[in-house]
Amino acid sequence: MNVLVINAGSSSLKYQLLDVDTGEVFAKGNCERIGIDGSFIGHQERGGEKERLVVDLPDHKTAVKHVFEIIDGLGLPVDGIGHRVVQGGWYFPESAVVDDEVLAKVREVAPLAPLHNYAEADVVEICRELYPSLGNVIVPDTAFHYNMPERAWRYALPRDVVDSLHIRKYGAHGTSHRFIWRAVQEFTDGACHKLVSCHLGSGASLCAVEDGHSVETTMGLTPLDGLIMGTRCGTLDPATVFYLQREGGYTVDEVDTMMNKQSGLLALSGISSDSRDIEEAAAKGDEKAEVALDMFAYRSAQLILEMAEAMEGFDTIAFSAGIGENSDDARARICAKLGWMGVRIDDAKNAVRSDEVREISAADSAIRVLVVPTNEELMIALDVQEKLA
Amino acid sequence: MNVLVINAGSSSLKYQLLDVDTGEVFAKGNCERIGIDGSFIGHQERGGEKERLVVDLPDHKTAVKHVFEIIDGLGLPVDGIGHRVVQGGWYFPESAVVDDEVLAKVREVAPLAPLHNYAEADVVEICRELYPSLGNVIVPDTAFHYNMPERAWRYALPRDVVDSLHIRKYGAHGTSHRFIWRAVQEFTDGACHKLVSCHLGSGASLCAVEDGHSVETTMGLTPLDGLIMGTRCGTLDPATVFYLQREGGYTVDEVDTMMNKQSGLLALSGISSDSRDIEEAAAKGDEKAEVALDMFAYRSAQLILEMAEAMEGFDTIAFSAGIGENSDDARARICAKLGWMGVRIDDAKNAVRSDEVREISAADSAIRVLVVPTNEELMIALDVQEKLA
Repeated sequence: MNVLVINAGSSSLKYQLLDVDTGEVFAKGNCERIGIDGSFIGHQERGGEKERLVVDLPDHKTAVKHVFEIIDGLGLPVDGIGHRVVQGGWYFPESAVVDDEVLAKVREVAPLAPLHNYAEADVVEICRELYPSLGNVIVPDTAFHYNMPERAWRYALPRDVVDSLHIRKYGAHGTSHRFIWRAVQEFTDGACHKLVSCHLGSGASLCAVEDGHSVETTMGLTPLDGLIMGTRCGTLDPATVFYLQREGGYTVDEVDTMMNKQSGLLALSGISSDSRDIEEAAAKGDEKAEVALDMFAYRSAQLILEMAEAMEGFDTIAFSAGIGENSDDARARICAKLGWMGVRIDDAKNAVRSDEVREISAADSAIRVLVVPTNEELMIALDVQEKLA
Repeated sequence: MNVLVINAGSSSLKYQLLDVDTGEVFAKGNCERIGIDGSFIGHQERGGEKERLVVDLPDHKTAVKHVFEIIDGLGLPVDGIGHRVVQGGWYFPESAVVDDEVLAKVREVAPLAPLHNYAEADVVEICRELYPSLGNVIVPDTAFHYNMPERAWRYALPRDVVDSLHIRKYGAHGTSHRFIWRAVQEFTDGACHKLVSCHLGSGASLCAVEDGHSVETTMGLTPLDGLIMGTRCGTLDPATVFYLQREGGYTVDEVDTMMNKQSGLLALSGISSDSRDIEEAAAKGDEKAEVALDMFAYRSAQLILEMAEAMEGFDTIAFSAGIGENSDDARARICAKLGWMGVRIDDAKNAVRSDEVREISAADSAIRVLVVPTNEELMIALDVQEKLA
């Protein structure tokens, strides 16, 4: 079965055509700067050279049409479409086949993620209109956390307020954490029961996965919470928001932008939101870069233990996403801070670069430590296969 | 040496006269409803009956005069005055003898704690004016956390913003955590090196105390952060504030009031902010009360591990303040959730009520668990003795 996976943003549209059964990726790309001058499509087939197609992309509809033209050119059938949806809100404990009601719900919960959900719903609608014979499945990034225990999702705010405004911990990266759990199960032959899944990219979150279920995660009502990220501050005293408005004279939108776009590793290092740049600077002795890396590892270690507490133990840590898969420095720093918990990594194994799932813990480690390349597109495609079967 | 300890709020003024060397309390009381109709002084001498003195208290100056009249009536000399100050801001790594400069600094940092610092500064000034022969010492509740490692106090917000507005984790309850450390050292003959100090009252915070130094704490820029408290929500996604303002239509002041005064155990239980009332309801099968107690214990256990991570280990947990000293139920719930870390309590020892420092851990516990009645007034008096010596 061939599935087209679409991940729409407000001005971009990523796509990937893959074979669910083999995982083979036939083509993938990204329509960038939709509705903005200088739009183009970065496209790649079967792991070949990246092409840059300069095309006019005034809107998402045009982008979808171009994607289908490209896909048609491959001469491969498309059997279904999977749509990443950032926020499933209070409706979706799992992926869902699209109908009018589902689409209305994706729009209803959009105030929780306005920059994403509206564009995503629009793209689903365009696909249904242009290719009515194809089934569409939405895969909300929050679904995996929907059934966390109440103690994990509930906020200690007045009940009438949280009920009427649907305020709770929704989390994010659920599709990735679900994939990571699945890959860990395969790799360990089902020996893992209590996993701390670490999706560490420019957005970063942890998830406590106990026997396949998310029981705790670090992102909250929105993806601002939890770990320090590329440009996001992560957890801090919510009263900081009051203080910035009152004493700093910032508007709520300005505080939002500051905390989401101008904070995190970028603010700490003063160099970049990309940990590779920061690691390079730290290696040359830059003190702020060193602070940024140390704080990222420190908060990660603290929050790994919060995840472990949710399961009253942990047997496996899995590192994934941009930083988790590629930065042996970040992995080493985090694991060193967990040495008192019996976490030991093998430096030689940690230094290896690979696209495969691999173990990096030392033989005497009390906790198994893995590196797991995540594959949200494959997870989405698997959901499409299951839901359209 | 006899020290008068004063703890001034915006409409109250607590006082205590004690002997620093013996710890004996000669008198203590509280001037309530200052500047409000129905003011009175609740007064108690040498652990005797509480008296209610109905007096007109139009302002703090009148309250201070009444306190000194009462103290004069005891016929005991006063050798110095210690003032609790909620927020020492970026100035006070330790207690300080009051002079004009110190007083100006207490006022300068007041925007961080406007409800407290202005009143406290006013009371210090009144004492200096009315009793010029007595030395005054301020004891900021933040001082203990002033020299935490940068990774603990720094927020990942833009550096120009945090520098110009003095935004950092200040913490609170520092005087209590310092006292608890001191009491633990006495009780264990110096065997404790890595203490998780749990000040659990209607306000609640944890502190990682490593060899006498605070290296991490749960309260942040303000006392809103960290644990779930009587009426405070504790840590949650800071974006919740944006969402409440935009989607809920609340003003920043309303969100502040909601999160500080209408949340926490009160909101979870729907019954009370007082854990005794909630425990009673839970015992009768009230489900929301049970959720409140479970969440309080769960968040406490998670954050105890964050404190432990700051020290890369812990050898002792000390429970203190209203809930920590008096609720065997809360202690049992928290410790049960830490069973996987080797924490074991002795149920019989835990059930004992006492005013003494006591150990409640089982013989096979990996971590020593103590109950430590806190005494912030004695700690303040000790600082006065040291600073005025």
